[in-house]
Amino acid sequence: MDYPHDQAPGAPIRSGIPEHGRIPKYYAVKAHVSALIDELGEGGTLPPERELALRYEVSRETVRQALRELLLEGRLARQGRGTVVAGPKLEQPLSLASYTEGVRRQGRTPGRRLIGLERFPCPEALAPEIGAESGEPVWHLERVLLADDDRVGLESTYISVARVPDLEEKFDPDSSFYAYLHDRLGISFGDADERIETVLATPREALLIGTPPALPMLLIHRISRDTGGQPLERVRTLFRGDRFSFTAHLGGRG
Amino acid sequence: MDYPHDQAPGAPIRSGIPEHGRIPKYYAVKAHVSALIDELGEGGTLPPERELALRYEVSRETVRQALRELLLEGRLARQGRGTVVAGPKLEQPLSLASYTEGVRRQGRTPGRRLIGLERFPCPEALAPEIGAESGEPVWHLERVLLADDDRVGLESTYISVARVPDLEEKFDPDSSFYAYLHDRLGISFGDADERIETVLATPREALLIGTPPALPMLLIHRISRDTGGQPLERVRTLFRGDRFSFTAHLGGRG
Repeated sequence: MDYPHDQAPGAPIRSGIPEHGRIPKYYAVKAHVSALIDELGEGGTLPPERELALRYEVSRETVRQALRELLLEGRLARQGRGTVVAGPKLEQPLSLASYTEGVRRQGRTPGRRLIGLERFPCPEALAPEIGAESGEPVWHLERVLLADDDRVGLESTYISVARVPDLEEKFDPDSSFYAYLHDRLGISFGDADERIETVLATPREALLIGTPPALPMLLIHRISRDTGGQPLERVRTLFRGDRFSFTAHLGGRG
Repeated sequence: MDYPHDQAPGAPIRSGIPEHGRIPKYYAVKAHVSALIDELGEGGTLPPERELALRYEVSRETVRQALRELLLEGRLARQGRGTVVAGPKLEQPLSLASYTEGVRRQGRTPGRRLIGLERFPCPEALAPEIGAESGEPVWHLERVLLADDDRVGLESTYISVARVPDLEEKFDPDSSFYAYLHDRLGISFGDADERIETVLATPREALLIGTPPALPMLLIHRISRDTGGQPLERVRTLFRGDRFSFTAHLGGRG
């Protein structure tokens, strides 16, 4: 026990047994399994539930609750019928760089799979955010984000049809939208405002990403402008909370 | 239904009924209650569970499951024995500015409550992050974060005792640590690296913050350096996921 409360500052969750009050039984099991995870290391296979139940002298339901939290937190992962120790979360920089670049920088292969591309009349609230008039046609491009062929997120992009009229014909939906904007249309990003929060996956989202429903997700809202300062796109990206973390470098306050 | 899938890009979760596959019953109720929340507006009181169960022709357990998710997401809040529509999440900027400043900027009153201040020998991994030698004494300052007297987060600060030897005697733990560093010791922050992820509150954390256990939280890890570039502190701050979101302005890539 190197740290107070056995909690290393950089670790997501190790221990956290209350000093006062009752320790929930499943939580004691979680702390044991957590130590076991550290011993096994990435890719190691966890013993089956019934064995853990015997080892810690608890019911299988109690073991299951402990494993459920460790799965939600991304410390464990399902592999076929077994449960293995997961690797660290991907660290995606909060930057104007695209998803593609961020994933590549970590030595993973980024990918995208089209869910849908549709036009709809621009709602009033969206209009100023993408520099369109209310009622004007807007694209909604929805794609699943992949890392090494695993589904890890879901992205909705809203952009005025006037801005990218040929989207349906000219854009390969499996490729980077930012590369398309830059290479084909000469549009570059100038700046963006982002907001990040945690939400639960809806059943539809869970189905599309292939996660358990109600998995905590990281949701990023982005409004971006081009280098001329004109509003460009509104993006809503949902990342698996068990697979992603986001990093930022904060400079001086001047 | 203004948007495809009835999902406004800026909204955390509205709908999300799968196009294919079965719609879970609780989720249909959640969508109904979600619309009701919009009608009622902030502070509005939700009808009791048994009335909602009658209205939507489902069991009380199904209503409870729908409300549980809306509570976890911060769209509803408990108030005494009733359930009311919650206000929007606090938007905290990701910046070198302190928690105190961020909360004040939103017209809320920031506060802090001391949980503990203890010394311990610096573990090897922490040493380079705070510019200390392994084994040298380190402070661990743990405080609950308040907004308008509500407990909203939990912060652990690790800093070398050599850097702030008088912390125990001279620092008022209910005040801003950054103001103390600046005003008393002339130490200012130069830059910092942050990492943000979503985790579940541990029982100890839930107890200290007064949240339900396993509430999704936003966890921010920060390593900061002073204006001279020297490592200064390591901070681990846990924010209620139902009450906070974080914002960032992203500049050009140069």
